[in-house]
Amino acid sequence: MKALQEKIRREGRVKDGSILKVDHFLNHQLDIPFLQAIGQEFYRLYGNENITKIFTIESSGIAIASIAALYFEVPVVFAKKAKSQNLDGELYTSSVRSYTYGKDFTITVAKKFLTPQDRVLIIDDFLAEGNAMRGLLEVTEQSGAEVVGLGIVIEKGFQSGGRDLRARGYRLESLAIVKEFVGDQVVFDD
Amino acid sequence: MKALQEKIRREGRVKDGSILKVDHFLNHQLDIPFLQAIGQEFYRLYGNENITKIFTIESSGIAIASIAALYFEVPVVFAKKAKSQNLDGELYTSSVRSYTYGKDFTITVAKKFLTPQDRVLIIDDFLAEGNAMRGLLEVTEQSGAEVVGLGIVIEKGFQSGGRDLRARGYRLESLAIVKEFVGDQVVFDD
Repeated sequence: MKALQEKIRREGRVKDGSILKVDHFLNHQLDIPFLQAIGQEFYRLYGNENITKIFTIESSGIAIASIAALYFEVPVVFAKKAKSQNLDGELYTSSVRSYTYGKDFTITVAKKFLTPQDRVLIIDDFLAEGNAMRGLLEVTEQSGAEVVGLGIVIEKGFQSGGRDLRARGYRLESLAIVKEFVGDQVVFDD
Repeated sequence: MKALQEKIRREGRVKDGSILKVDHFLNHQLDIPFLQAIGQEFYRLYGNENITKIFTIESSGIAIASIAALYFEVPVVFAKKAKSQNLDGELYTSSVRSYTYGKDFTITVAKKFLTPQDRVLIIDDFLAEGNAMRGLLEVTEQSGAEVVGLGIVIEKGFQSGGRDLRARGYRLESLAIVKEFVGDQVVFDD
């Protein structure tokens, strides 16, 4: 998605040679018209797949999934990262290693929101090592729902997540794949 | 907002006589067409106020704010609840007491996303004691931005948050105000 590459070049920032900051438009401040363009692109890719639910994880996936859902006309379900006192009932769970926060956490989703009848598109902002995605896949598969595909806004192609997921046979569509950082410049795979 | 009261009666659930669960449509699974109706109602209330930014807090506020922003045609900024290694730069911060999670947390927002030129609408899913809202107000006011008003989906009218905020002079619009729970029934103020 060329418009996304241009957006990243214009508004993104490479920090410490390895972290891509896109907080101007994707995960702290949200550029809603740009999220609409992202949602339309996911719909172009998956719109004929009879998706019944978009599944994501708090927090950065929620806005992207919600805007994409306007086009798919399906509900969003987001996995939660901590068990609060208000999250009761039967849950699917998976343990996830987070490099960003430097600790493990448990993701949970209420069983009633993913069923064997669902055809699920999993959406997230970033894919690097793929730990969060492995957790989302684990809880989706516990539910018996079908994983139709994965939609990622920015994949770090030099980390192993995308390669592993494709090797496992998943359809993975990343709207931008970062090949490498050269100084403060982002080089894309395309 | 009558449609919201009906939605809560139909899909909400009162737990332990004091907790209102709306995870079918508002904060775990997201009913996107219904969030569009909520966004349109916020726009009806605040659409002539020259809002420049919608401000909310992760996670439950993000979908509501993002869909509302479609009508206001402004960016969303969401406060973060934990300082990750990726959230650098200058920050406004406030300490918030959470009853849901039973501990204090710090909310942060990057200074660059709230400025004295901004006219801010603060949106959240629930208002009870108002602790999260006080934190959002504190960081907004640190920035010099103007708080035009507050938009809440469900206010628990029997808790003190709404009364305190109105007494402080804020314009507070709650789309449904729960007066009390009688057994497993929700009684609204209207």
